[in-house]
Amino acid sequence: MPQDAEIIAVGSEMLTSQRIDTNSLYITDQLNALGVEVRRKLIIGDDRPLLTAAVQDALNHAGIVILTGGLGPTEDDVTREAVASALRRELVFSQEICDAIEERFRRRQRKMAEINKRQAFVVEGAEVLPNTNGTASGQWIEHQGRVVILLPGPPGELKPLFANECVPRLTRLLPAQVIRTRFYRVTGFTESDLDALIAPVYTKYTNPSTTILAAPGDIQIHLRARCGAEEDAERLLAEVGGPIEELLGTHLFSRNGDPLEAILGTLLRERSATLSIAESCTGGMAGERITSIPGSSDYFVGGFVTYTDRMKIDSLGVDPELIAQHTAVSKEVARAMAEGTRNRTGSTFAVSITGEAGPESSTGAPVGTIFVGFAGPDGPPEALRFAMPGDRPRIRGFATQAALDLVRRRLLKLD
Amino acid sequence: MPQDAEIIAVGSEMLTSQRIDTNSLYITDQLNALGVEVRRKLIIGDDRPLLTAAVQDALNHAGIVILTGGLGPTEDDVTREAVASALRRELVFSQEICDAIEERFRRRQRKMAEINKRQAFVVEGAEVLPNTNGTASGQWIEHQGRVVILLPGPPGELKPLFANECVPRLTRLLPAQVIRTRFYRVTGFTESDLDALIAPVYTKYTNPSTTILAAPGDIQIHLRARCGAEEDAERLLAEVGGPIEELLGTHLFSRNGDPLEAILGTLLRERSATLSIAESCTGGMAGERITSIPGSSDYFVGGFVTYTDRMKIDSLGVDPELIAQHTAVSKEVARAMAEGTRNRTGSTFAVSITGEAGPESSTGAPVGTIFVGFAGPDGPPEALRFAMPGDRPRIRGFATQAALDLVRRRLLKLD
Repeated sequence: MPQDAEIIAVGSEMLTSQRIDTNSLYITDQLNALGVEVRRKLIIGDDRPLLTAAVQDALNHAGIVILTGGLGPTEDDVTREAVASALRRELVFSQEICDAIEERFRRRQRKMAEINKRQAFVVEGAEVLPNTNGTASGQWIEHQGRVVILLPGPPGELKPLFANECVPRLTRLLPAQVIRTRFYRVTGFTESDLDALIAPVYTKYTNPSTTILAAPGDIQIHLRARCGAEEDAERLLAEVGGPIEELLGTHLFSRNGDPLEAILGTLLRERSATLSIAESCTGGMAGERITSIPGSSDYFVGGFVTYTDRMKIDSLGVDPELIAQHTAVSKEVARAMAEGTRNRTGSTFAVSITGEAGPESSTGAPVGTIFVGFAGPDGPPEALRFAMPGDRPRIRGFATQAALDLVRRRLLKLD
Repeated sequence: MPQDAEIIAVGSEMLTSQRIDTNSLYITDQLNALGVEVRRKLIIGDDRPLLTAAVQDALNHAGIVILTGGLGPTEDDVTREAVASALRRELVFSQEICDAIEERFRRRQRKMAEINKRQAFVVEGAEVLPNTNGTASGQWIEHQGRVVILLPGPPGELKPLFANECVPRLTRLLPAQVIRTRFYRVTGFTESDLDALIAPVYTKYTNPSTTILAAPGDIQIHLRARCGAEEDAERLLAEVGGPIEELLGTHLFSRNGDPLEAILGTLLRERSATLSIAESCTGGMAGERITSIPGSSDYFVGGFVTYTDRMKIDSLGVDPELIAQHTAVSKEVARAMAEGTRNRTGSTFAVSITGEAGPESSTGAPVGTIFVGFAGPDGPPEALRFAMPGDRPRIRGFATQAALDLVRRRLLKLD
């Protein structure tokens, strides 16, 4: 069977400017892990003749054709009919599926509507893929050495169905292969500087493949090796990943894809240390990220969103003279904010953010000027100055990342 | 010319699990405003024969075929060649484009690489669409009553090029039409309850079209009317929007698509009032949202992320007895948090959030239990209890929205 796939997402809503097909990202990830490449993705409305033609066309291109969506109970849901037409097979009624749907309704003390019987039709010869999270069953059809898979559109139904029913079937059909990955995250570089640094290493290899993705202050590097044997894949990853890790140095904060707030949590927990924060221009973004990690109450005490000078003075004990002399966007005030936060909360470490996120500057400092302060048990409080690029959301994203990274560096005693 | 379009996004990176085509959302929005529907979207790799076949196929389906990406200078960039093959035309060298690219390099004190000459080739008969933000020119080709448009992939190049060069040309070709929209946002409903409520109104109309999108505590309803004359479009919107607004009642918080934090900012500014917050389980999410609005320092004083009982006591003055008696996740503590926040900051209003975001409960209250407290100048502090569905990110999203909405309701003196 040819090892490539086409994914067809069915649903008129995905042809509007508000919705996008994201199921294909999950499916692609799963297929890639099996050594299958996605050759084309098609997004198409609830239009039976157009979909029928698309399925026929896809079978000319790909060994695996996966359709997502269009399996609901209404007239709009045409995937079953279109696939049957494309394969020149009949649709047959499955009493078994019908019973399962009725049972599902009964468990919720509701009666199955007549219209739901449409969901009990399967393409002749299809294996039914039971959906434990909804009324739309999946279908697996082998056809002239190719596979056609029908999956329900809601991600919460599609994902378990694909993982539990499709991956094992595909694994049996496909030649044995292993995929091993490394997923680095890096801060303190621009994407182009990072690429200039590591391209000489990774461009020499097509296996592992390298993908680089950038967010403010957070660049991800994915390495993926695909081999017949696990040890070959691991050897290739070490061969490329080793020199890359060396070049990245202390900018590398994650080797497993975990975000900085998770890394920080582990470091704090290992040291039985606690953290508190004071945020000005980020308004709570750093606290939100830290507390997005379940169990963060083990090490996160809390924080202050000191959006006015008054709150910096009252809640953190910042000296009003300091603000008058240096403005609230200054090294001195960032330092005093961190120190005050640590004093008020009694946490082991405290970090502070103050700056100009734009679009206007309130202190005269250029938009993008950010100070991050830090206070801990060893040595006097300190503060660093940054000039962040971009608009308000980007500046706030960079500032938050810089603050979390300063804590990481101090915990690891890095420069 | 048929008023439908197919968009083909070219680039192997968009067939990985890490990248998605989003240019088509912008183009769809622009096309819809011209009365053009997108019938299919195709995502395809840098594969010349596959792309050639796809362009031929698209011309059978759609009057307007738009290709994005694949116009760079390298061998991988095959869009020009594939379109020429599909239309059975030649590629011709344009000295004018070549000069423009050379000039672009010269302005940056760099010499044009020989490879960039590939970008000076255009499909015979194409109009060149000058790209002021990059070296890849767009192309506009009329072919047997249809239009084929080639656009560069980077959004910063594609968007101005489409807006400035393509929209005016399409407007000339297409029959005159106006599109008028309403964009409602609603809170306090589930998507299915909301749909059951308003479907009897909107399903009677295909024009305006209705789209419903749901996020935690925030459902968007888009109405779009398309008519020959502006007054007809406005009349249709009023005919459908009027009864919908009536049914939504006080759950409707935005008529122009603005998020709740922007609506709140306007309400506070109109009243020359200020707001402060205390957050427990949301960890800063509400503050982050409020301060995402430029100029929020006019009305937002700041807040407290009181993640521990100690901080609720020390920073907000919550009575330790109250926590001992009712736990930190209680109506009593939510109320005391709001009151303490208002007292400490001197703001006109204060809102608080405390609850169990999961995955574990720390107080015994079921995961999803959220209390929102409110304090203001009129009447005693109060608190409301909510049971929020979903996982940690959804619960935190719902809780934040409920807190902002309570402030809106109190400012507007709604129940």
